[in-house]
Amino acid sequence: MKILIGGKGRMGSLIAQTAQAQGHEAIAQVDAMSLDEIKEKPAADVLIDFSHRDNLGWIIDYVNANDCALVYGTTGLDEDQKQQLYKLAEDHRVFYSANFSYGVAVLQEALRMLTPMLRDSFDMELVEIHHNQKADAPSGTAKALLEIMDPDDEYKKVYGREGMIGKRGKEIGVHALRGGTEAGEHTVYFFGDNESITITHHATNRQIFVNGALKAANFVVDQPAGLYDMRSFF
Amino acid sequence: MKILIGGKGRMGSLIAQTAQAQGHEAIAQVDAMSLDEIKEKPAADVLIDFSHRDNLGWIIDYVNANDCALVYGTTGLDEDQKQQLYKLAEDHRVFYSANFSYGVAVLQEALRMLTPMLRDSFDMELVEIHHNQKADAPSGTAKALLEIMDPDDEYKKVYGREGMIGKRGKEIGVHALRGGTEAGEHTVYFFGDNESITITHHATNRQIFVNGALKAANFVVDQPAGLYDMRSFF
Amino acid sequence: MKILIGGKGRMGSLIAQTAQAQGHEAIAQVDAMSLDEIKEKPAADVLIDFSHRDNLGWIIDYVNANDCALVYGTTGLDEDQKQQLYKLAEDHRVFYSANFSYGVAVLQEALRMLTPMLRDSFDMELVEIHHNQKADAPSGTAKALLEIMDPDDEYKKVYGREGMIGKRGKEIGVHALRGGTEAGEHTVYFFGDNESITITHHATNRQIFVNGALKAANFVVDQPAGLYDMRSFF
Amino acid sequence: MKILIGGKGRMGSLIAQTAQAQGHEAIAQVDAMSLDEIKEKPAADVLIDFSHRDNLGWIIDYVNANDCALVYGTTGLDEDQKQQLYKLAEDHRVFYSANFSYGVAVLQEALRMLTPMLRDSFDMELVEIHHNQKADAPSGTAKALLEIMDPDDEYKKVYGREGMIGKRGKEIGVHALRGGTEAGEHTVYFFGDNESITITHHATNRQIFVNGALKAANFVVDQPAGLYDMRSFF
Repeated sequence: MKILIGGKGRMGSLIAQTAQAQGHEAIAQVDAMSLDEIKEKPAADVLIDFSHRDNLGWIIDYVNANDCALVYGTTGLDEDQKQQLYKLAEDHRVFYSANFSYGVAVLQEALRMLTPMLRDSFDMELVEIHHNQKADAPSGTAKALLEIMDPDDEYKKVYGREGMIGKRGKEIGVHALRGGTEAGEHTVYFFGDNESITITHHATNRQIFVNGALKAANFVVDQPAGLYDMRSFF
Repeated sequence: MKILIGGKGRMGSLIAQTAQAQGHEAIAQVDAMSLDEIKEKPAADVLIDFSHRDNLGWIIDYVNANDCALVYGTTGLDEDQKQQLYKLAEDHRVFYSANFSYGVAVLQEALRMLTPMLRDSFDMELVEIHHNQKADAPSGTAKALLEIMDPDDEYKKVYGREGMIGKRGKEIGVHALRGGTEAGEHTVYFFGDNESITITHHATNRQIFVNGALKAANFVVDQPAGLYDMRSFF
Repeated sequence: MKILIGGKGRMGSLIAQTAQAQGHEAIAQVDAMSLDEIKEKPAADVLIDFSHRDNLGWIIDYVNANDCALVYGTTGLDEDQKQQLYKLAEDHRVFYSANFSYGVAVLQEALRMLTPMLRDSFDMELVEIHHNQKADAPSGTAKALLEIMDPDDEYKKVYGREGMIGKRGKEIGVHALRGGTEAGEHTVYFFGDNESITITHHATNRQIFVNGALKAANFVVDQPAGLYDMRSFF
Repeated sequence: MKILIGGKGRMGSLIAQTAQAQGHEAIAQVDAMSLDEIKEKPAADVLIDFSHRDNLGWIIDYVNANDCALVYGTTGLDEDQKQQLYKLAEDHRVFYSANFSYGVAVLQEALRMLTPMLRDSFDMELVEIHHNQKADAPSGTAKALLEIMDPDDEYKKVYGREGMIGKRGKEIGVHALRGGTEAGEHTVYFFGDNESITITHHATNRQIFVNGALKAANFVVDQPAGLYDMRSFF
């Protein structure tokens, strides 16, 4: 495939390197300021963007002009921008996800199945581990897991316990560990009567997002126009 | 419920105690030699047996005579005995499982879903931990998990690695740890490209089997005649 | 050994049963109200008490009168009572500890060694897991571990993280998970630059405290007068 | 520091990059064929080598000629080569180790302390996890841990369990998991009576060896002549 990459940052460079290692052609890495670079280049089969929402305008124009597929992983879109993306998907192939880790998508699918089986008789707790520079807690992925575990927001989320807390109520404990260079680990615990089940996803580094984006590109390029996400793999 | 318990062993006693603690009536614990004990007793609503296959004969007679439900957890039946059980289920309520842990049943269900999603791009390994008196390896539960992970027996099972083994082939590593008084832990690892997923079931003691048997009894007593197992809960 | 047990509660009964299973003689289980029961009995070699601090008075009298060894695991003593115990140890064998788990004592010893090696270049976090009825957090054992990890109280203890917390400071995250029937697990994490070390103690049930108390009894009975604790084993 | 790096491979390049990022000067990466490159260069303060034992000859010459410190991590030396290294250390600063991970060194130190406390009453098992391309099992690090756990080779090493194995004997189970891109995890389990202790070292990537080598360089450059290893840090 011919791949055009949005943004000139480190994530874009990783995508370009991995794409080439897999035998694809990375046409260019561009942003709003450097669109001239691709004027003379052939049209891309897929545009992959993990850069910044400010690039959304020219990206939509490019997809419309070249009918290329779009793999979109940029987060922080406002509602209006999301609507633009959904509209684009009416006539084009758009793969849009906030997390391109295949393993995290599988974990989410597993929790969709496990939680209804377990939550009546098991207590749920969530632990996530990230490096010591991460400024927010819990992680975006942890929040997404919580929405799956408790879609109707029936459980109180408890972000720490100290002192005379009394016995456990209808709640989910959410624990953010921070330390070292950890790339990201998420564990969901189900504690029952003399037994427990735990499920963990561990990421070594951001390469998994690159792998997931290229997996999505390979997939979406052969689909009809429409909106796709990680669940489209299952 | 009025519960009759097969066998006079420790498992039977645990069932009796727990049943009474839950407000049920444990009529008696009997085996082939002590059937006289129940001659004068009222008929049971459910018969629960985790004793020995040699008790199967009178159990079938009792169920037929009293139309009581049967929760059967004895292992080691021969083919003929299994057929007797299936035949009994044509006219009576029979809940038959080799493992009454609810958590293990959930783990199995999770693996039915996870394995097809992961086995093409992740390597699978299985670790089980049991106490230092256990004489066989891997555990029966581990074998049941392997059948779910590899239903068509496409993967070589590797029960240990030592020496110049070369790079990993199409295989599942199966590792039996033995030590202390561990009641039973099973972990399935999926190792991928810069990410991994693991799922673990941990049992504290044999109480989980008692809990599962009573859960099964509560369930099956309200069902029509037929054959049920742990998947009937889902 | 002839063992006298303080208190008539469940812990005392467990000690009596285990002592007898190990070939010792459990003379009696007594409290302040039932001392008459031992009037006619032979003198104990060891008195083991895990009951209530209100029993301390007669216990000291008994040890003085019979020169028997004392294994004392009752918590919640006030300063005056502690002094009485230290004074008793001037002339008698006294083994006094707030936690009789041998494994927890080993974990503490390991942390005494590991922490100075690691804390300058690794981030420390602590996770403890207990059943859903436990009313306080973190556990007493967790607090004891923190004192070992940070004897000069140089690190801020963070009992939960939520929101825009900024990058990690000079702190130890302390996370209390609650669920099911978990008897007690404590894990210390050291997160470094592309590597981590974790050490975990897992308890299955309160039997470990009984085992530790009897180990202490066997040990202290052969020692000269003095004050002993779990570190005396090492 | 001025650092000379032995070998032109990927490990050498990683050392050069990290050294520069830390403010050091990487003079050159050389092997026996390219020594001319350093003829005109200033003398190094430290020579770091993780390349191949065939480079040992010129390395010894260089250290003798320039009285520079040596950090040596190449494995596979024969006995004669080891003796040359020890002789060199009589007059020069030589830091020699088969594993430059600081965390693994700490794990080894912890096991030196823990094992004598635990092995009489706990069962020991070892699990190591590495990527699916690793050709040998168990890992060299696992072997080094086993030597610490059982210095007098009193325990049978069991590299897998299958079939009717009978109850556990005086043995250490050694389990090699293989999968994905795992950089290396080693866990030692101590299973006791109703309790267990586990200690784990996890490496994310080979950067830890680079970090350890530079830590060794910083350390050894300020020492008198002599032979040093990772235990010199403690």
